[in-house]
Amino acid sequence: MLQQCLENVRKNAPLIHNITNYVTVNDVANILLACGGSPIMADDQEEVEEITSICGGLNINIGTLNHNTIFSMILAGKKSNELGHKVVLDPVGAGASKLRTETALRLMREVKFDVIRGNISEIKTLANGSGNTNGVDANIADVVTEENLEETIAFVKAFAKRVGSIIAITGAIDLVSDGDTCYAIRNGRKEMGRITGTGCQLSGMMTAYLVANPESILEAATASICAMGLAGEIAYNRMQEGDGNSTYRNRIIDAIYNMTAEELASAAKIERR
Amino acid sequence: MLQQCLENVRKNAPLIHNITNYVTVNDVANILLACGGSPIMADDQEEVEEITSICGGLNINIGTLNHNTIFSMILAGKKSNELGHKVVLDPVGAGASKLRTETALRLMREVKFDVIRGNISEIKTLANGSGNTNGVDANIADVVTEENLEETIAFVKAFAKRVGSIIAITGAIDLVSDGDTCYAIRNGRKEMGRITGTGCQLSGMMTAYLVANPESILEAATASICAMGLAGEIAYNRMQEGDGNSTYRNRIIDAIYNMTAEELASAAKIERR
Amino acid sequence: MLQQCLENVRKNAPLIHNITNYVTVNDVANILLACGGSPIMADDQEEVEEITSICGGLNINIGTLNHNTIFSMILAGKKSNELGHKVVLDPVGAGASKLRTETALRLMREVKFDVIRGNISEIKTLANGSGNTNGVDANIADVVTEENLEETIAFVKAFAKRVGSIIAITGAIDLVSDGDTCYAIRNGRKEMGRITGTGCQLSGMMTAYLVANPESILEAATASICAMGLAGEIAYNRMQEGDGNSTYRNRIIDAIYNMTAEELASAAKIERR
Repeated sequence: MLQQCLENVRKNAPLIHNITNYVTVNDVANILLACGGSPIMADDQEEVEEITSICGGLNINIGTLNHNTIFSMILAGKKSNELGHKVVLDPVGAGASKLRTETALRLMREVKFDVIRGNISEIKTLANGSGNTNGVDANIADVVTEENLEETIAFVKAFAKRVGSIIAITGAIDLVSDGDTCYAIRNGRKEMGRITGTGCQLSGMMTAYLVANPESILEAATASICAMGLAGEIAYNRMQEGDGNSTYRNRIIDAIYNMTAEELASAAKIERR
Repeated sequence: MLQQCLENVRKNAPLIHNITNYVTVNDVANILLACGGSPIMADDQEEVEEITSICGGLNINIGTLNHNTIFSMILAGKKSNELGHKVVLDPVGAGASKLRTETALRLMREVKFDVIRGNISEIKTLANGSGNTNGVDANIADVVTEENLEETIAFVKAFAKRVGSIIAITGAIDLVSDGDTCYAIRNGRKEMGRITGTGCQLSGMMTAYLVANPESILEAATASICAMGLAGEIAYNRMQEGDGNSTYRNRIIDAIYNMTAEELASAAKIERR
Repeated sequence: MLQQCLENVRKNAPLIHNITNYVTVNDVANILLACGGSPIMADDQEEVEEITSICGGLNINIGTLNHNTIFSMILAGKKSNELGHKVVLDPVGAGASKLRTETALRLMREVKFDVIRGNISEIKTLANGSGNTNGVDANIADVVTEENLEETIAFVKAFAKRVGSIIAITGAIDLVSDGDTCYAIRNGRKEMGRITGTGCQLSGMMTAYLVANPESILEAATASICAMGLAGEIAYNRMQEGDGNSTYRNRIIDAIYNMTAEELASAAKIERR
């Protein structure tokens, strides 16, 4: 399954429209190219519907929201829904400000998302309708551990069922569920948290996986999460003395570029719950 | 000729005003520094005329257009024309949306460009007044090959003559013409297409080459294209096992930083047509 | 002292709100993570007060000003002052346009800054109320040298006293003063000027140092300047044949990531004047 998902991205080279933040946008573009997709960034109201129409999927990321782009997100999201395109929401910093929380909730009302991917604090904020996050990182109190795993899986399933979207929570243990099945993924390394934008990158790449695997999007989302985590492991193993988070960032994208379907299938640590 | 062009950039350290997209802007700034120039980015209407006045050249890139910056592009372009500064247009994604196509055409009517540099699909869009591009990449149907080279050279020459600007089409084979002479350049590697922004970087660097070589701008444009392609070759030769597109990106900029005039002159693959 | 400053950043992991330019924003985020802090970027008027409230400090950088963000800077700055947060101003390009000069001066009137950090031309512009800078780089005529050091120290002290902020001028020799004491720092390498954004990165990291060391902010600012310069030295020593400014950029952030308090203390070249 994972193998096929990765191969389909390489074969179909999906074109992904990204309305995303200006902090990590370059890394999102490069990881999309690394995995076999193709990125386009466009956020002006006058062109987003047209741009999204020529793409296969849309990745909406609220990391540096502003009033102009919110409206563009809604326009592009509605148009993508109309065309049956895959749409992903990355609610960066939901819970850190009313603008972010309310924009994410508004997007969820007006646009149907195939997947909503965030950290645990962001997703809890969306589930509760309000919240409190530590900037753009998860609150320590929220972190998914082996101890609260059972409970968190129940939460993810219930929220996915209620919203009608796949929900992906990424962190030390990643969880992704369509409401019925939940996959727990234990790839990745904690040092990935010391790089800006690994979450943003994953959301972009996940959109490409969904587009290339339209018949099995839960598996596609899972495969992209494994690929990102595995890239973090491969990149870490290539670190040399004196290397730090900047080099680690480059090596993660490099690892996605070089990852084979076989590697992904054999190194993935997935548990079905 | 190529040698002199590169040396003049190092000697004159031209200051280049960039109104460019937020995806690749950091790489554009770093490649300008790498080649010996100096970048400044400014896009607010209130300051673009003043900023462009203290610079030697202006690089306009429509990669992430929005309504505010379009007007800034026109203001800065007109001011640069008034002052006799070199001006380059990079029509990223022309053909992918009406906004991009029409903005590029409007810019061409209101501003006199020394060089317009794009991929074949973008340039064909500008020549036809409308078009159809695959996002920000060239359509496969359009690609310049040895088979359609003759015909494409005739097209480039005719379009350059009609517009009164040097036209540069970059891809597997690069073509650059002022309407009379056309240079075909065969440096570079196909893997450069797996990095976001090599085109944007080239447009920025090309502006510096024009400013530093005002008396021979066709040769300066050609030299910058060769330098970019050669950097792609040098960087590729330095790739090690496990390296991918992110490391390749860094090594290309590094190669520009270290490139000598002699290296450029001896490795350039230029044919005059 | 330096040791303690660095350790406090690692221990307290200060969350820093950045309203900064889109050219170097990714590097600012990664260096904040590298030094032990945590970044959040937000610039919409509707959320900046709320975002800054959950942070420990605010870093305002005018590198790509526009009308929307100017108002956000003032709102966030006033709110930070109200809450007693640390606030840093990086007046990128002050002197290059009226918009930049006047915005920097307006920010200084409306917001109380703990530190204002720029190159010598930018700081002179602020001191004179107008100026003339070479884009975003210092004018050669202005450069701080051993010859004009005495005089420049007197200028920095007087300006710091007049403004009531710590003033930091970075360049070949860095100076930082609260009006009474002035530290001259001789770490760093001239090749750092060939990378875009080392100044922006320093301003972000300096904010984290101030927040983590609220009782000794002159020392904290000094420590961050030493750390940046030392990172430039360490990174340069790791450069291999063929490496250029792009790799140098990564290695500097890596060096901040790996720097120990002992290394900083033993390699710092600080003179008290």
